[in-house]
Formats: sequence, C-alpha cells, structure tokens
Amino acid sequence: MSWFQFVVKVYYDMPRVEEKRLMKALEDEGFEVKPFNVTREPLPIGGVEDHIALIRAVSMFRSLYTAAVLEANGITPINSSFTIIYSGDKILTYSVLAANSIPIPKTVISLNGDSTIKAYLQIGFPLVDKPPIGSWGRLVSLIRDWHEANIVIEHRSMMNNPQMKAHIVQEYVEMPEHRDIRCFVVGGNCLGCIYRIPKEGEWRSNVALGADVVKLDESTEACELAVKAAEALKGEVVSIDLFERKDGLVVNEVNGVPEFKGFMRATGIDVAKEVAKYVKEKLKK
Amino acid sequence: MSWFQFVVKVYYDMPRVEEKRLMKALEDEGFEVKPFNVTREPLPIGGVEDHIALIRAVSMFRSLYTAAVLEANGITPINSSFTIIYSGDKILTYSVLAANSIPIPKTVISLNGDSTIKAYLQIGFPLVDKPPIGSWGRLVSLIRDWHEANIVIEHRSMMNNPQMKAHIVQEYVEMPEHRDIRCFVVGGNCLGCIYRIPKEGEWRSNVALGADVVKLDESTEACELAVKAAEALKGEVVSIDLFERKDGLVVNEVNGVPEFKGFMRATGIDVAKEVAKYVKEKLKK
Amino acid sequence: MSWFQFVVKVYYDMPRVEEKRLMKALEDEGFEVKPFNVTREPLPIGGVEDHIALIRAVSMFRSLYTAAVLEANGITPINSSFTIIYSGDKILTYSVLAANSIPIPKTVISLNGDSTIKAYLQIGFPLVDKPPIGSWGRLVSLIRDWHEANIVIEHRSMMNNPQMKAHIVQEYVEMPEHRDIRCFVVGGNCLGCIYRIPKEGEWRSNVALGADVVKLDESTEACELAVKAAEALKGEVVSIDLFERKDGLVVNEVNGVPEFKGFMRATGIDVAKEVAKYVKEKLKK
Amino acid sequence: MSWFQFVVKVYYDMPRVEEKRLMKALEDEGFEVKPFNVTREPLPIGGVEDHIALIRAVSMFRSLYTAAVLEANGITPINSSFTIIYSGDKILTYSVLAANSIPIPKTVISLNGDSTIKAYLQIGFPLVDKPPIGSWGRLVSLIRDWHEANIVIEHRSMMNNPQMKAHIVQEYVEMPEHRDIRCFVVGGNCLGCIYRIPKEGEWRSNVALGADVVKLDESTEACELAVKAAEALKGEVVSIDLFERKDGLVVNEVNGVPEFKGFMRATGIDVAKEVAKYVKEKLKK
Repeated sequence: MSWFQFVVKVYYDMPRVEEKRLMKALEDEGFEVKPFNVTREPLPIGGVEDHIALIRAVSMFRSLYTAAVLEANGITPINSSFTIIYSGDKILTYSVLAANSIPIPKTVISLNGDSTIKAYLQIGFPLVDKPPIGSWGRLVSLIRDWHEANIVIEHRSMMNNPQMKAHIVQEYVEMPEHRDIRCFVVGGNCLGCIYRIPKEGEWRSNVALGADVVKLDESTEACELAVKAAEALKGEVVSIDLFERKDGLVVNEVNGVPEFKGFMRATGIDVAKEVAKYVKEKLKK
Repeated sequence: MSWFQFVVKVYYDMPRVEEKRLMKALEDEGFEVKPFNVTREPLPIGGVEDHIALIRAVSMFRSLYTAAVLEANGITPINSSFTIIYSGDKILTYSVLAANSIPIPKTVISLNGDSTIKAYLQIGFPLVDKPPIGSWGRLVSLIRDWHEANIVIEHRSMMNNPQMKAHIVQEYVEMPEHRDIRCFVVGGNCLGCIYRIPKEGEWRSNVALGADVVKLDESTEACELAVKAAEALKGEVVSIDLFERKDGLVVNEVNGVPEFKGFMRATGIDVAKEVAKYVKEKLKK
Repeated sequence: MSWFQFVVKVYYDMPRVEEKRLMKALEDEGFEVKPFNVTREPLPIGGVEDHIALIRAVSMFRSLYTAAVLEANGITPINSSFTIIYSGDKILTYSVLAANSIPIPKTVISLNGDSTIKAYLQIGFPLVDKPPIGSWGRLVSLIRDWHEANIVIEHRSMMNNPQMKAHIVQEYVEMPEHRDIRCFVVGGNCLGCIYRIPKEGEWRSNVALGADVVKLDESTEACELAVKAAEALKGEVVSIDLFERKDGLVVNEVNGVPEFKGFMRATGIDVAKEVAKYVKEKLKK
Repeated sequence: MSWFQFVVKVYYDMPRVEEKRLMKALEDEGFEVKPFNVTREPLPIGGVEDHIALIRAVSMFRSLYTAAVLEANGITPINSSFTIIYSGDKILTYSVLAANSIPIPKTVISLNGDSTIKAYLQIGFPLVDKPPIGSWGRLVSLIRDWHEANIVIEHRSMMNNPQMKAHIVQEYVEMPEHRDIRCFVVGGNCLGCIYRIPKEGEWRSNVALGADVVKLDESTEACELAVKAAEALKGEVVSIDLFERKDGLVVNEVNGVPEFKGFMRATGIDVAKEVAKYVKEKLKK
C-alpha cells in the first residue's frame, strides 16, 4: 500500500480554523481525511483499524483520552498521550523540563492553601500563581501583594477540582511590554517564533486575551530551546512558550494540541501544510 | 556514604496505617526516615537534596504532583509520576495494558452523554460504567438496563470535573460471589494474591466497601499477569486487581499508591518490610 | 398617565419562543416593551424608574436575583422573588403547600447520604429521589431497589453544590402511562390543564424529555387545586404539575417562570395574550 | 399543658459552643431539650409532633431545609425559612432591606462576567465584590483596580454553582480600623452591639478571620437600625452587621443562624439565656 492510500483521522470536539486547515492540507498531500467528533462517537479499545491520527480536541482531557485509546489499539497518535498529559498539566511539564536540565522560571509547587503562603514567601512579590490545568491564560494571576494573595488563595480553595487546588507559584519574569515568545516545532524542526504582545491593560500574552503577534526575525536561540523542550516532552507537533529572563531564555509552557492561527498570521508560515508534510515524511520511513 | 546513612522521605497527606508501618519498617532497615506532609510544606523545583522518596498521599493528584516535583529535582520517587498518573487514571491504565497486549475487560470509552448511549449499545447490559479517576469503587456502577443507564448518564453530566464526564464502559465480568483478585508486586516480585469478596448486598469488591479478604493459595498465574501489568506501568510498588473471566484472567486496575492493610491481614505478609527491603536492595545496586 | 404609556420590561437570559410571544402580546395590548438581557446589564439597587417587570430568565437564580433587585427598587415583578425561590426550590414548594393543607406526594427530606438510606426505608421502593433545584426533570430518579439507591446516593454525594446534596424522597405515584397533569394559572384564573405523557422508554413527563401533550377536557378539579397552589405560593403567572393519586390529586411542582409552548400546542390557548391582558387589568386597578 | 412540659428541639449539624450554651440555657428555663442532628435523621413532611424548634445548622441550606420541613408540619421554627433564605442570600437581604427603606451600602448586582465589568464602572474603585452565599467573609473581596477586578471575575466564572456566578458589587465603606458594628436582636429587642476590629493585615471584620471584639457603649442608634432590619427580615433571633458611613449607619448583613461567641465575650451578655427567656415568653402568649 502506498502512502497516499492512507487514512488520516482528525479527532476534534469543536472544529476551529486550525482543524479545517489541517484537513485541507492533508487532503492536498493526497491523504484520505476523516474527521472524527469525539463527543459523538465512542472510542473502543480493540478492533480499530490502523490509521494516522491527529489529536485536535480543544478539551485537554478529551484529547488525552482519545490519544490513550488509540494507543491501546496499537496506533501512534500525533501527539501521544504522554505528550498531551505531560504538556497539558503544567506541573508535569515543568517536571520533565527541569529533569532534562531545560531552564524554567523559578517555581515552587504547593498543594493547598496553607503551604501556598509559604510558597509565596519563598518566591516573593510580584509573583505568578496558576493552576496546573487550563488554557488561554485562564486563572494565571500576577500577584503583587498579600491582599491579592488572599483573594487568589481563597477563590482557588473554593474550587472542587483537585487540580485547581494545586498552585504553581513562580517568579514574575519581567519582559519588555510583557511580551513572550512562542515557537512552533514539527517533527523536531522549528518552524519559527513570534512575539506575543498583550493588549493594553492586560499583562498576559495569550492571543485569546487579545495579544498582538509579531514575527521574531532572529529566532535561532529560541528555536534551539524550543526543540529541546519538544524533545523532552516527546512532542511531534507542539508550540513552546518562552520568557526572556535577564540571564537567558526559559521555557514557560508547551502546548500539546497547539493552536496556530496567530502564528500563521505573524509569520506567513503555513503550519497546516508543514504538519501534513511531516505526516507524509514520517510514513515514508 | 553507606546505604544506612540514607534519608527516606515518606510523602503523605493523611497518615494511614500503611504509612506508619512503612516508616517503622524503613527505620528497622536502618534508614533515617522523615515524614513529609505535602499539604503543609510547598515543594520547590530546584534545591532539593538527594534522598529516597516514597509517595504515599491518599489524593492521587497530590501523589502525582509530589512525584513530579521530585523528578524535577533529579530524584526517582517510588512510584514515578508516570506510574501514578497512568495507573491513577483508568483510561490511561487500560491504554498501557492493551498496548502491551495484557488482557483487560472489553472496554469502550465515551467522552460525553450522547456517545455513552452508543457505548452502552456496543457493550450490552449488564455493563459497568466508571469514571477514569476515583478510588474505593466510588461511582463504579453496575448498570442492568436503560433505566439505570439514564440515571448514571444524567448524574455524571452534572459533574463539572472534565474527567467525571468521561465514561469507561465495560463488560460486566461475572465471578463467583463477585470476588476479584488483588496481587501485590514490589520491584517486579509478586508477594502473593488475595480474593476480595464483597459484603452482602454489594457487588463491588473494595475493602473500603466492606469486602472480606482471603488468601489465594495458588497464585502463580495471577502473579504472572500482575508482574506483567506492573512492568507495563513501570510500577515499583503496586497492587493489581484481576478478574477471572471464563477465558482467563484480565487486569482491571493498577494502584500506584497501594493500600495493603487488607492484603496483610489475609496473607500475613509484612508488605511494609518487603518494601523497605526492596528500597535497600535497590540502593545497593 | 394612562396605562398604554407604561413600559414593560421583559427580563431574560436566553430568549425562548415564550419570551418572544410575550413581548409580541404585550405590544399588541399597547405597552411599550423593552427586552432586558440580565447577563449583559447589571442591576442597580436604587435609581430604577417604575415599570412593569416580567421575569423570564431560564436560570432560576438569575430570575430570582432579578426579581429581588426590582423589589429593592420598589417594583413588584411578575413573579415576585418569594414566588420564584419558593417554587424554584422544591423543598420550599412542598413546605408552603403542606403548610397550606394542599395535598402533596408522601415526602421525606434528607440532607445527606446516611439519612437518605433511612428516608428510603421510610418511603419504600419504588420511590422517587430528586434534588430541590433543577428543571426539565433533571436528576429526578425513579429508584426501584437498593442497587439503584446506592448509585443515586453515591453520585449525588460527589456534587459539590449544597442543594444537590439534599434529597427529596417521595412515594412513586403510579399513573396511567406515567402521565401527569399541568395547569396554567394567571392572576388567580386557571386557563386550563393538559396531560403530559412521557415518550416511550421514559417515565418522566417533561416536555423537554420528549413528552406528548393532550388537552384535559374536564379540568375543574385540577384547576381548583392549581389555583390554591398558585395562591399559596403567591404566584401571578405560574404552571402547576399534579399527580392523580388513587385518593385524589396531589401537587408535585409549581413553576415560577413557566414555559408554555407545550400547553399552547395542546390547548390552543394563547397564554402570552392572557398574560398581557392580566398585566393590563392589574394596572387598571 | 404548661409551658415547662414543652419539648425544644435544637436542629444542628456540627455542634458549636453556641448550640451547647443554648441547650443548657433552655434546660435551665425548664424545657425538655432534644438535640436533632439533621445530617443523621431524615425530616418527614407529615407526622411530626408539635414542638419548639431552634434552627442551628452551620450550613445555611441545611438550616433552610430544616425550617421549611418544620413549617410543612405546622411548626413555626426560630428562625423561619423566610428569614433564613432571605438573610442567607445577601441579594435577597438587600432586596428586603431596600424595599423597607433601610439604608444599605450602594449596591449593583451583576449576574455574569460581562455585566460585572459594567457594575464595577458604576461603583468605581475601591469596591467590594462578594457572592450572595457564604459565611465568615469568604470570597468577600476588596478590589482596588482592574488588575484585581480581572482576578476576581475570572476565578468566580470558573465556579459552577449558579449563586457563585452572581456578583454583589458595592461601594467600599471606609471606617476607622476597618471595624464594623454587630448588634444582636432577640424577639424585637436589641441586646446590644459590638465593634469588630479586623486583625492586622486583614480588612474584613469577621471573627472567623481573627477580628477583635469590643463592646459599643452607646448603641442606641445602631440598635434602632438593627431592630428595623430584624423586623424587615422577620427574624426572631438574628445578628445584624452595620457600617458607619459618613452620612449615617447602613446595614450590611443579617445573620439568620447567628453565632454569638464573640458578642458574649465583648459584652458579657448571656445570649443563650436571652434566647431561652424569649422562647418562654413567646410560649406564654
């Protein structure tokens, strides 16, 4: 069987522009593309025919469980369940990064309210507190003093999800215009990087929070670190967020089901096409 | 430095009889034992001195995050974050087991209410539905008809935790007295197995639900499968639950922070001592 | 100022067919109608000009809080905060009904898992268990035996909302085809009643669960009881659900923000017009 | 039957010092006192013998439902379900107070995130945001700028309880040492008032948050307002929290199941005895 007869299933829950572009690009490369709505169809363990699987559910847990079931069926999804959970849960991300000697912001984890106060004392204000699970900057809080500390600790303690009770307490890395850097890595190759510059009145650089995106002309150093982070997390298609600390770049986040609308706009790079080409190359091996 | 100078930290949240026995046994083997309450003290990434770490928090996520932070510090906890999350989340457990050709109950995963109905149709009544996260048999439901199916689907849809919205839908494996088998594996060696026999009026065999425990005299076959499951999940100290299906044993669950009070009572085996000896052996290598 | 210069504000969150019909009918009666989206605009206490207020938010708490703020401003909304909370919370509904000697199903309230078992023993199987808050039959469970009892108790205990932990435990009133009766009362006048007949495979008679609706030709007795229930709850525009018990009718539910699409279909009565006429009459007094 | 043969049931969930003192005082007045744990025993509608009922569950909803079931049985609990829900939900409290021309802080209600921003603009910083349900100052947030506003709005939006999504947005009433005034009213009589002075580093005056208590020597004016508030909420045994605004006192909160440990300490008044005496007087009428 030649590669062009291969079926690619794109597993999604809410189709975004990214999923549509990926499906188009895969068709353009000659694949037979089948969208699979993971909220509509159950996922059996056993009896699933071999195929190429792109995991693209917005919900991290839906992506995770889809990847896991596919692996149970002997399929190697892009990305793997390991990549999705270890990048989807930021405590696990930092664990892998630090264990691989990749620089991260100074970080202390606390598992409930009392020890959070101690963690704040260890890091010092201003600091960032965020839960391990969450996208688009949600609940990522810049805390400037004890008044704000109390607000965050109290509110988080009222959330009943066990993950929401865990605090990632970090140094606040000050950067020009609060911007951070996002790089995109496909199959170990860095496609490039962008600055994400928060909109006025917002310190977080998430595109979902209105951030502006600008291409990074000189991205060698950032790309190098991004590739290392992708490798550490065994990510085939991932984006990596970096901070420019005075002593060098640090990795802040890895996205295992990455959005790339903003990246495309800023760089002109056709990410979907690059992913499709990577899938084809991988198949040839 | 000789082994007996080594510090063992036991990471806990609510000290059970298991944690107390482990600490005693480790002291008896000559270790310096330090209990560490993960709800009281924050866990820094960086600056943690090398030590032996036993992860024993009742809360799966507390255990997971503690293991992860220790790994970030270059420490290899017992068990690893991988073992804890892949055994703590039952969809991930089945994924690893099936990918390693270890028999499991017939299983279909569904990620919300609509597809759960389809999953039920694929498995047929009576069936078992359980969420991926949870201990002591909690929310594990034996569903006999559509009336009960609707009750479970509706109630689960009202839970806001994303994991609680995922359904593990399984064949109901009928066994004499609903009993199942639990084996205990330490460092790749099977200490033995027990039957867990539910109390009257309960179909689940969890000791927390009042199950009785009886030693399994002939445990070779069960032990063999348990060791394979432990290996697949890279678990150093784990218990494994098995069902006796007509065509042979299947693995139902792996516990990455295993309780062993019931196992000790039934078998007379001093699990804590076996763990302490394993830690010592490992250190000598 | 004459009545036709009066402003009627219709407070809504998600506009249903009911809200659209109400606005049209009010305009037809000569009112100036202003829709007010309670999720978009804040509600100040103080400084609100006098107007007629129809409370029509789908969310019970949004309706409740809107009515309450209007009352703070000296306005008498239809319905009042009292009617909305005492009909929106079924324990409060039964409290008012029973205190007014209006027959209800045999009912025992329990406030957590342990006492729920005792409540089940007092009522006996088959029984109905439902939480005090909720619409469209959600979580209303017909429990036939201890197996189902355990499923419901366990699932409800995992919900973190304090209201969800309360159990209304009731006799199961057996009726032909599981049908119940719904009457509509406006300003103390009963517009009529319908049977609601569950779709096949469902025992609950909620239209949202696919129930069929049929006009009740002889509704005198039902209407009489419905008017009493409406009075007890001080409801100006309410629907009332009744069960036919062997010894006579009992009131099961009062709806303080009633839907009436099904009622209109079955009876041909223009509920919106009746409400608009009532508003006009009330104003004239 | 003479009054001293009457049974008083004290309905509780977690017995505090208040409940113990109340039971002792009632016995001292000659009543037969029966504690009733509302988490252990179900509450039937029908068949409950007449008795005097003191509602003392810590959980507001447990108190509310207990009072409601007693009313269904023809009993008039202290306090009534109306008092408990209208004082337990702060939006309902303000509604009743404002409708009765009792001064309250300047208040705007918003029912979700978007309209909360508008509410903040209407009130201006610094402002207070709190959910309608909650005790001991929990989640009551003093918000000084948009940075803190965003933190609170985001965190609250992640809570799944519909009441937690409602925002009470209020002017911040600045007072010497952030102190407020609490008065205690029994049967329409004001027992006295205290200042509550927050501990250092905390702006909220809740005793549960470490506040100090000092007797108010001249309490005529405060008492007068407290009695009016108690009347408006039909509260027989209530405490009332007041703020000293430049233009006079305003009512901030009414407690329908009041704690009084701090009040006793500051004033030397035996609140439990006053309540027991009130119960006896009431019975004589």
